[in-house]
Amino acid sequence: MPADPHPLADGVAYVRGAYVPIAEAAIPITDWGFLRSDATYDVVTVWEGAFFRLDAHLERFMRSCERFRLDPGLAPAQIAEVLAECVRRSGLRRSYVEMIVTRGQPPWGSRDPRQAVNRFYAFAVPFVWIANEAQRERGLHLKVSAVQRIPASSVDPKAKNYHWNDLTMGLLGALDAGADTVVLSDAAGHVVEGPGFNIFCIKDGGLVTPEEGVLEGISRRTVIEIARSLGLRVELRALPAEELRGADEAFLTSSGGGVLPVTRVDDQVLGTGRPGPVTQRLLATYWDWHRDPAYSQPIDYGSR
Amino acid sequence: MPADPHPLADGVAYVRGAYVPIAEAAIPITDWGFLRSDATYDVVTVWEGAFFRLDAHLERFMRSCERFRLDPGLAPAQIAEVLAECVRRSGLRRSYVEMIVTRGQPPWGSRDPRQAVNRFYAFAVPFVWIANEAQRERGLHLKVSAVQRIPASSVDPKAKNYHWNDLTMGLLGALDAGADTVVLSDAAGHVVEGPGFNIFCIKDGGLVTPEEGVLEGISRRTVIEIARSLGLRVELRALPAEELRGADEAFLTSSGGGVLPVTRVDDQVLGTGRPGPVTQRLLATYWDWHRDPAYSQPIDYGSR
Repeated sequence: MPADPHPLADGVAYVRGAYVPIAEAAIPITDWGFLRSDATYDVVTVWEGAFFRLDAHLERFMRSCERFRLDPGLAPAQIAEVLAECVRRSGLRRSYVEMIVTRGQPPWGSRDPRQAVNRFYAFAVPFVWIANEAQRERGLHLKVSAVQRIPASSVDPKAKNYHWNDLTMGLLGALDAGADTVVLSDAAGHVVEGPGFNIFCIKDGGLVTPEEGVLEGISRRTVIEIARSLGLRVELRALPAEELRGADEAFLTSSGGGVLPVTRVDDQVLGTGRPGPVTQRLLATYWDWHRDPAYSQPIDYGSR
Repeated sequence: MPADPHPLADGVAYVRGAYVPIAEAAIPITDWGFLRSDATYDVVTVWEGAFFRLDAHLERFMRSCERFRLDPGLAPAQIAEVLAECVRRSGLRRSYVEMIVTRGQPPWGSRDPRQAVNRFYAFAVPFVWIANEAQRERGLHLKVSAVQRIPASSVDPKAKNYHWNDLTMGLLGALDAGADTVVLSDAAGHVVEGPGFNIFCIKDGGLVTPEEGVLEGISRRTVIEIARSLGLRVELRALPAEELRGADEAFLTSSGGGVLPVTRVDDQVLGTGRPGPVTQRLLATYWDWHRDPAYSQPIDYGSR
């Protein structure tokens, strides 16, 4: 077989101080990051060779660490350097870049999380789209799940975490029902978030997105800023499922694809059944902003 | 340095079909078992060279797998053989034995959990006590946390899972406050469970343990059976925190130590402040049952 011209193009990870091919990256089975999902993380993307809003992701990551009392052992600038090095070695111009800190494990016999040595991991892989091209073109079919999102009284949704069983079980139900993805509600019947995304709806030209019980997504924040810059009204408040079903337009926001149109909620077709004009305008501006030096930070790939 | 007479005595894991020293056991960083805590598990113990209630643990594990739509790829008898081999190779006569199935990951680009190839892991390590000897002797000091346990409407507590952030944050708060461990409540203020254990209290000779919102622990079941065999009254029902504080005695149940006396709840000393007589009787019987062939299954360690 001919040699792979670039064996690291599937991704590069940073594990215990070394850069390794993603296929070789592993965490100890005894790390509480796995055995207790005792970890936090963040994901930043690289688009056309530049990080998008890296500072915002690093800032949120450090806040998540503080909230869960996890220490990455690196300052934000050092983390940025590790992330850039993962991307650089992969050669990827469009990349999905994840930073992680796990609890590690306390000395044998101790059950005290304070005695654990936390561990920092990172990896860069090819860009991840949370919807494929056909879905993005026609708009996603979304199901409102009966599974309730884990409430903030149990796990703080503003600190990014891997507690996804509710999202996964909801997603399985939605896929079985023929939908593309799922959004979960809270105990009061307000929709909150889905697997890896926030949700917005549009009615009479104004945007609504849930305020409580959700991760404060950087893509969500970007869309709010874009909408306001375009003079659109934005309301951050509880969003009843019924209101979402009756919206003119709806879309998801995620680092995994930016603005993702939704054209059906449960059995309800939204508007014309095609991605709507406000959504399209926000989507275009979202990608325009990727060329704005205020938000993008080019990576030096060297001579590669 | 002299060679370690038995290098596997720290534990042995089963990873991708091979038996490896626990220190070398790892899972891929990209496994959704880690990145989405999309996994289930069970823990069985080995005491004096014999599994305790292995069948009950295997049965629960298979039910957890079914609930989360995870496939271990092995029948219960095959899993039992893998677990026994981990223990056998470790040489451990008292061991904490964990079986795990993770989602694995779907083909690159897919977000559909149904397309993932699930993975089975197992390991045997030295027996884990969830309380140290001094704590077991004097009885544990327990704090009732303000953090709410993840509700059953979000994640099914009867299917064993690694969604422990609520337990971990509650535990950190309890340790900071000088307690030994923590119990969480539900939204109605009823205590439910703690990190790795169920809870019981005793009033006027009768036992109470929560019925809903908890893992149906095998140790919990064992204690219920013991109590009934001793002619004690057992109520499975909601347990208000106030009732726990006013109990004559209390104890935790866990595979990590069986029956663990509690002698203080928040600022309230229970009874005489020493492990009580009913607790002691249940504790003694719990260990007696480990010698009963109805519940124990000896491991053939061969010529080792």
